[in-house]
Amino acid sequence: MKILVIGAHGTIGEAVVAELASRHTVITAGKTRGDIQVDITQPEEVQDLYEAAGALDAVAMAIGGVKFAPLAEMSSADYLYGLERKLMGQINVVLAGLDCINDQGSFTLISGILNRVPVHGGSAAAMVNGALEGFVKSAACDMPRGLRINCVSPDVLVETLTVSESHQVLFRGHKGVMARDVALAYSKSIEGIITGQVLTVP
Amino acid sequence: MKILVIGAHGTIGEAVVAELASRHTVITAGKTRGDIQVDITQPEEVQDLYEAAGALDAVAMAIGGVKFAPLAEMSSADYLYGLERKLMGQINVVLAGLDCINDQGSFTLISGILNRVPVHGGSAAAMVNGALEGFVKSAACDMPRGLRINCVSPDVLVETLTVSESHQVLFRGHKGVMARDVALAYSKSIEGIITGQVLTVP
Repeated sequence: MKILVIGAHGTIGEAVVAELASRHTVITAGKTRGDIQVDITQPEEVQDLYEAAGALDAVAMAIGGVKFAPLAEMSSADYLYGLERKLMGQINVVLAGLDCINDQGSFTLISGILNRVPVHGGSAAAMVNGALEGFVKSAACDMPRGLRINCVSPDVLVETLTVSESHQVLFRGHKGVMARDVALAYSKSIEGIITGQVLTVP
Repeated sequence: MKILVIGAHGTIGEAVVAELASRHTVITAGKTRGDIQVDITQPEEVQDLYEAAGALDAVAMAIGGVKFAPLAEMSSADYLYGLERKLMGQINVVLAGLDCINDQGSFTLISGILNRVPVHGGSAAAMVNGALEGFVKSAACDMPRGLRINCVSPDVLVETLTVSESHQVLFRGHKGVMARDVALAYSKSIEGIITGQVLTVP
């Protein structure tokens, strides 16, 4: 397969590339790094991304971007921040790919644990994750040409917990997951047959 | 209790008012009708709404506003339409109410069935419903002063199916629910003790 990984130089993105690169051709993309630079919040840049990448069998995303703050300190703009980045960024990639990725191709998006297990200040993340999962579940039923779409929902990364004391405090009791185990969920989505699924890790 | 119902003149809103008015003082609000007119997509109008309403024990919302179209015909702007109206409209009401509704007060939001049972063209509705449910689940854990927050998720209304052939086609197999039964879920949220819950109807 020819697979585009967006956010390929983040901790999860690197693990996804490492998991897939031995079996497939991987094209990397990111806001400032990778084979192709793209700001996925801009629909026209996403169009250019697909033109630069050429024919694709799968698109995997490992991107984030939400505000964290106690509910009472959040503004409408703070929620919009995450809606524009993590939510609409990924939806823009799906919409532009609908008529150009190969038949039976797949999209793999990323949500996260915070709508399953809330943490202090995580209401925007929970909102965005819920939105992504609702979108994926519905879009899977409406996909043309046998295209598939799934969402990976990982717990906090061990790699993040190890280096961030604030994450240790926020995620007390979370064992955390290794990025390489999150990458296995991407593999299930890309190399399997499932669609409309939220792949929780662990 | 003194209860503000926003969207009080829709089919669900009218049933909520009918359910609550015999036991409580109900203030009605809506974009063009009700005791107070408000566009909840505008945070400054929501502030004015709370000033006009005075002290409140509960805020209930029964509003909508999402685009329906097959996935391949949806644009980024079509998703933003629902994010600004049904999602951020309701979140604006919660944010502005956090420091002004009475201790132990409650917010009751509305999502819908389409992230549980997708229908053709309903991906924006599914996205918005998922977002609302993620937000409510997380915000409940972050609420000050014993405030509560829940979300009512009704199936399609019998009242809508009866008059709309396009809804009958879209929702084949759905028995539908009566608005008065949806109103009972609002009553559970407002007059009960639950928080962080998605109250599905049926």
